[in-house]
Amino acid sequence: MAAVIYTPYAARVFIIDNMKDMLGRDNVISAGEALGRLLNCLPGELPAEVGIPIEGSLGRICSRDLLSPEDLPHFARSTVDGYAVSARSTFGATETMPAYLNLSQEVFMGDKADFLVSPMSAAKIPTGGMLPGATDAVVMFEHVSVLDENTIEVLKPVAPGENVIQAGEDVRIGESLLLRGWRMRPQDIGACAGVGVTKIVVYERPTVSVISTGDEIVAADSTPDSAHIRDINSYVLSAMVSQAGCLPLKRGIFRDNYAEVRSVIELSIAESSAVIISGGTSVGAKDLIAKIINDMGSPGVLFHGVSMKPGKPVIGGMVGGVPVFGLPGHPAAVAVCFDVFIRPVLDRLCGYRERFTGAGRRTVKARLSKNVSSSQGREEHVRVVLEERPDGLWAIPVLGKSGLITTLVKADGTFVIPVNENGVEQREVIEVRLF
Amino acid sequence: MAAVIYTPYAARVFIIDNMKDMLGRDNVISAGEALGRLLNCLPGELPAEVGIPIEGSLGRICSRDLLSPEDLPHFARSTVDGYAVSARSTFGATETMPAYLNLSQEVFMGDKADFLVSPMSAAKIPTGGMLPGATDAVVMFEHVSVLDENTIEVLKPVAPGENVIQAGEDVRIGESLLLRGWRMRPQDIGACAGVGVTKIVVYERPTVSVISTGDEIVAADSTPDSAHIRDINSYVLSAMVSQAGCLPLKRGIFRDNYAEVRSVIELSIAESSAVIISGGTSVGAKDLIAKIINDMGSPGVLFHGVSMKPGKPVIGGMVGGVPVFGLPGHPAAVAVCFDVFIRPVLDRLCGYRERFTGAGRRTVKARLSKNVSSSQGREEHVRVVLEERPDGLWAIPVLGKSGLITTLVKADGTFVIPVNENGVEQREVIEVRLF
Repeated sequence: MAAVIYTPYAARVFIIDNMKDMLGRDNVISAGEALGRLLNCLPGELPAEVGIPIEGSLGRICSRDLLSPEDLPHFARSTVDGYAVSARSTFGATETMPAYLNLSQEVFMGDKADFLVSPMSAAKIPTGGMLPGATDAVVMFEHVSVLDENTIEVLKPVAPGENVIQAGEDVRIGESLLLRGWRMRPQDIGACAGVGVTKIVVYERPTVSVISTGDEIVAADSTPDSAHIRDINSYVLSAMVSQAGCLPLKRGIFRDNYAEVRSVIELSIAESSAVIISGGTSVGAKDLIAKIINDMGSPGVLFHGVSMKPGKPVIGGMVGGVPVFGLPGHPAAVAVCFDVFIRPVLDRLCGYRERFTGAGRRTVKARLSKNVSSSQGREEHVRVVLEERPDGLWAIPVLGKSGLITTLVKADGTFVIPVNENGVEQREVIEVRLF
Repeated sequence: MAAVIYTPYAARVFIIDNMKDMLGRDNVISAGEALGRLLNCLPGELPAEVGIPIEGSLGRICSRDLLSPEDLPHFARSTVDGYAVSARSTFGATETMPAYLNLSQEVFMGDKADFLVSPMSAAKIPTGGMLPGATDAVVMFEHVSVLDENTIEVLKPVAPGENVIQAGEDVRIGESLLLRGWRMRPQDIGACAGVGVTKIVVYERPTVSVISTGDEIVAADSTPDSAHIRDINSYVLSAMVSQAGCLPLKRGIFRDNYAEVRSVIELSIAESSAVIISGGTSVGAKDLIAKIINDMGSPGVLFHGVSMKPGKPVIGGMVGGVPVFGLPGHPAAVAVCFDVFIRPVLDRLCGYRERFTGAGRRTVKARLSKNVSSSQGREEHVRVVLEERPDGLWAIPVLGKSGLITTLVKADGTFVIPVNENGVEQREVIEVRLF
């Protein structure tokens, strides 16, 4: 549309053209490049929270390496029920030529074994019992024949250290047990307990402001007038923020008005580590968010429009060291933009370091039930339902406009058609990112 | 060891032999069979909790189907910025032979469009705006040329319904929005908000008692004597219970004493939906838990010993409709037993119904870095570290005794060598279940 002669919407039409140019074949911004721009200018790490009880640390991110304050175990323990011996006294033993050992004292569970077992002797010991002095291995009951109260036959030799956990074998004093950037899992909590560390230091949880905008949006608990609809996105986004390990701060619903929206964004930047604004599906509203971000400071808008569907009109910016996202109002676009841009940024803000790429992602392989075409030059995120059939898992594309929240409710996840492909054929195996 | 002539441990040795028989080639109990026995006698569903605010419902399980109380949207909306028209008036339009339409009134966002647009007329409308009377489609700005204040040229026809979300297109009144047994995700919360449902009905969270036993175990925040070690398992298990969406109830540490342990199990059965006892790595202790479970009521012990490594001596039972687990004390065995037996049971108690098999599981494919052998006749769960190399993701088996908690801390997940295989070869692609 070259010639705009007259329209009260002239400015808006210009914006559309401008955005189209920005997304044209020659200077397309890929999702990867857009994310890179954001990640390149994130602020340093958040402050640490000290003294977090390990019971409440599941999912939190360690803010420093944790060195073990002691050996675990702090004494050599048997891993079987049997007889503690000096391995040397069993060498060469067989069923036909057993080693005869004298029964010395017995080790009781939890009791200090502060006696010596002389060579050619053995002491009964339970699993987990402390090895007595001068023993270095344990013969299992199964490999022993009991002759009388004072004598056993060992039918099979043991090597030094066999059936024993050595002092410090699990973790040595000073050894790093947890690394900075790890997300606490049940076993990490258990390891802390094992060495007596019942409180740890983790990063603060980032607070993320969630703002809904739109003249047509009303609160979910109100009854909308005939031309209004209820706020959906701030609920979806707040839950996604929680899932990402951050604290959502719902700021409410604002009309598409420069002063009102700017004021809540300013407050949000002052009080939180990231800001997500959703809504603004109409051109004027989209422009409003970008203008406010640019007006508020440098670098302002880092990208506005990405070669991706849904989510093309997404805005990413940075104001005063705080990442600010402007998401299109369509629920499917909100979900995809969160996954592609916001979650990686929040992971970084949280201080999370993946142990390997994709550690935090749940995916399954499935076969595609029908051809899905895509325009070259844009990355397409397709919602699918997974269906178990006798021959395996199939992914059925969910049809329906990206403005429909129920397309997301029906779907189990999405798969990505890369930017330079025309589509995916029926029966091809795809990787589905689960919601 | 056929002949036990004399030993104060005679009863214990008998137990070992007995268990070995139970696990012998002829009457092995597979992990699958053991789990089946448990699932077959689980109690009915938990009571529902009503009036849970949707903001706090992430991860909760719907206890009933949710039917939408209204249409969403409740009016026809534009999905683009453009002109609302009767599609019929654009039929046949081309760039060279455009359709000329009169500009009628304008639709403003959030305003009721309670006027009629006569045939051969159009009304400006923003994305999300309400379609005015007698229109059924929207022409995008891009396909329109504005001639003057009162006239536009439509350069491309639209079909009826094009660029419109119909009333009820997202969800119809009475249509089921959420199904009983679904775990609430962000988009499910959003869908509720969209139809004005801000409180929902979910199943109660099952409470799970966690009991540590062992004469050698002391609290994590105490300083152990020379032959004692700190409680690790109740921390690991409580965190896993939380991850599974249940409420852990730590009962404390108990000595291997019939009366003491029976009394805490009785209390736990009375007050919770499942009971997990860990510890008892020595033969006498293992027998103690099985005996208590059998003494307490029918059916008592459902399995004791499974053809699985680690975790072979696991006990599963049912007392008064409450599942009771006796886990070996080794941390690796605890983690594997939880994954194989306890999580599926807790999922069922929670009322969770998987949308497809494996929905709740996080897995990745990786190539195995070295041969791993396994004994035929037992299912082996091998801990691995994942490592990214230029040619993809590799899984490196973690060596170390299953009694070491740090083998679990180092590992990213496990893979399973099925019961009838001898092992897995280097470079084979395996599926790793992530922790």
